[in-house]
Amino acid sequence: MPTLREVGEFEVIRRVIAARPPAVTGVLIGAGDDAAVLRLDPGQELVATTDAFVEGRHWRPDLIGPRALGARLAAANLSDLAAMGAAPRWALVSAGLGPEHDLDELLALDAGLAAALAVDGAALVGGNFTAVEGPEWFALTLLGSAATGAAWSRGGARAGDLVAVTGVPGSAAAALRLLDRHGPPDAGAWWRGFATTWLAPPSRVAFALRAVAAGGVTAAIDISDGFAQDLAHLCDASGVGAEIDAASWPRDANLDRAARELGWDAPAPPPGDDYELVLAVTPEKRGSLEQAAASSATPLAFVGRFTSIREIVWRDRDGSARALARRGWDHFSG
Amino acid sequence: MPTLREVGEFEVIRRVIAARPPAVTGVLIGAGDDAAVLRLDPGQELVATTDAFVEGRHWRPDLIGPRALGARLAAANLSDLAAMGAAPRWALVSAGLGPEHDLDELLALDAGLAAALAVDGAALVGGNFTAVEGPEWFALTLLGSAATGAAWSRGGARAGDLVAVTGVPGSAAAALRLLDRHGPPDAGAWWRGFATTWLAPPSRVAFALRAVAAGGVTAAIDISDGFAQDLAHLCDASGVGAEIDAASWPRDANLDRAARELGWDAPAPPPGDDYELVLAVTPEKRGSLEQAAASSATPLAFVGRFTSIREIVWRDRDGSARALARRGWDHFSG
Repeated sequence: MPTLREVGEFEVIRRVIAARPPAVTGVLIGAGDDAAVLRLDPGQELVATTDAFVEGRHWRPDLIGPRALGARLAAANLSDLAAMGAAPRWALVSAGLGPEHDLDELLALDAGLAAALAVDGAALVGGNFTAVEGPEWFALTLLGSAATGAAWSRGGARAGDLVAVTGVPGSAAAALRLLDRHGPPDAGAWWRGFATTWLAPPSRVAFALRAVAAGGVTAAIDISDGFAQDLAHLCDASGVGAEIDAASWPRDANLDRAARELGWDAPAPPPGDDYELVLAVTPEKRGSLEQAAASSATPLAFVGRFTSIREIVWRDRDGSARALARRGWDHFSG
Repeated sequence: MPTLREVGEFEVIRRVIAARPPAVTGVLIGAGDDAAVLRLDPGQELVATTDAFVEGRHWRPDLIGPRALGARLAAANLSDLAAMGAAPRWALVSAGLGPEHDLDELLALDAGLAAALAVDGAALVGGNFTAVEGPEWFALTLLGSAATGAAWSRGGARAGDLVAVTGVPGSAAAALRLLDRHGPPDAGAWWRGFATTWLAPPSRVAFALRAVAAGGVTAAIDISDGFAQDLAHLCDASGVGAEIDAASWPRDANLDRAARELGWDAPAPPPGDDYELVLAVTPEKRGSLEQAAASSATPLAFVGRFTSIREIVWRDRDGSARALARRGWDHFSG
């Protein structure tokens, strides 16, 4: 009910910290000091990423509530650690908030963020609040750990490796477009469940950690900027190309229905906002990866293979091939 | 010359990363992947902080250029690691930028940030750019290392420990007020050198690392929110009070002159923006800390002592005592 201005910065910080779940292992000094002090286990490397959301650009307050927004902010960063095969551990959140921001809404956002991090074993250990006029924003830095030398990069794919993708790329963009057009779905809307692909994206961390244990992943990338563009980044870093087979492309009846309603020509995936992974997998480990996916309830499709010809080819069901355009999200041109 | 919109997000990222100095030790995967992979040495703990600047609130483009702004952003975060006695290692920068932001100005800001970090041994290893309409912002997360158990906290001061302070608190606030009133100083302005206390604040990292080696520091805090308020935070965390002796308070002729011009009643320090430290020091280590200060060209004054009475007292030169008000910066009320 009270605003941040009414409560004051230090009491806001005190209440936010007091409402958080207890610290996870490895936290020697948590939020409330000049910095957090954290302990990695021997034989572990530190893995660090940061991703930010800006009001009006990454979210509209009329389409998503504060708790779900916090969870989405977690998801964006968890996806980057999943793409490294790293275990999330600790997070710092920096926020630009209007002085009239409601304290209870901030507590709800922080709770949603903390709860989504906790599912994958991470906790908030620090942060910074500052006032802004204009659009609010949240920048999260997520720190994780990986066994020495075990983290995946974008650069290890080799010709002959299989291209695997989690989830159904395009779903988040389609769900957002429906939300944008209709507002939040009411109880009877056919796309109410489908909307969660944008409102509450699943984490792929559990799958990634099982995949690390299974072995056989030679490179990985998060495809939140668009499948075609992010696959191209992985291919560039690895010095390979890829051929994608339309017949193996993951389908979903809800996405097909959404695509018809939106006038998209499925299945060529539109860019944007899928917190899913593309992985390069050695052929002999395909079965182990499928087990890792099944045991973590993760849709996983093998959609093609990496090639030595440095271009990305989309092969249609009729056998015809065309270059896959590097369509993707550009924050400064979008 | 070109804008970010003209160049496009991924080319902006490529150019920013290409312009950075080479990676420091411990960087296994740097900027350009989904996350950075970093290695701490055995026996080290991770120390993590984050601090953000918002246009119009933390800086005005007419008062500070992009390179100096980058250095100031580094200074704000370096100060938090200095307050932990930690060695800066790696940083991630998240920025909200207008699409019409000039690429060369962004490169200058990044260069200023990287150069200031490099002085204290740290390097940029990742980040995130997003477009904003309205005020621009920069959020830096700075990661450092400290030997196991060696990081300072706010909570270790005991009655009888000495209160030490670096620099001359109030200088940054006075310099900013002069800048605000007059604009950038011209060549003949008496306060041209003094203005650097705000425009290019010194780092206290080198002093802090020497102080860690010397021993005797039981607690520390950065006083960027105001000496009185931050000392109160340290006292609260440690369960002590403090008595400050006006006769020992650091003086500076330029600050005295600025205070007269601004109509302040020096020496009671006004809040704000000093990237300086308050330390609790065991009495027998005073000499070692003075050596650490001298060898790192750091002004250090012993200004009082911690007490078992949980209040903060300012003792004037005439012997009279008064409670020191918890004046400080509140982002949501300021």
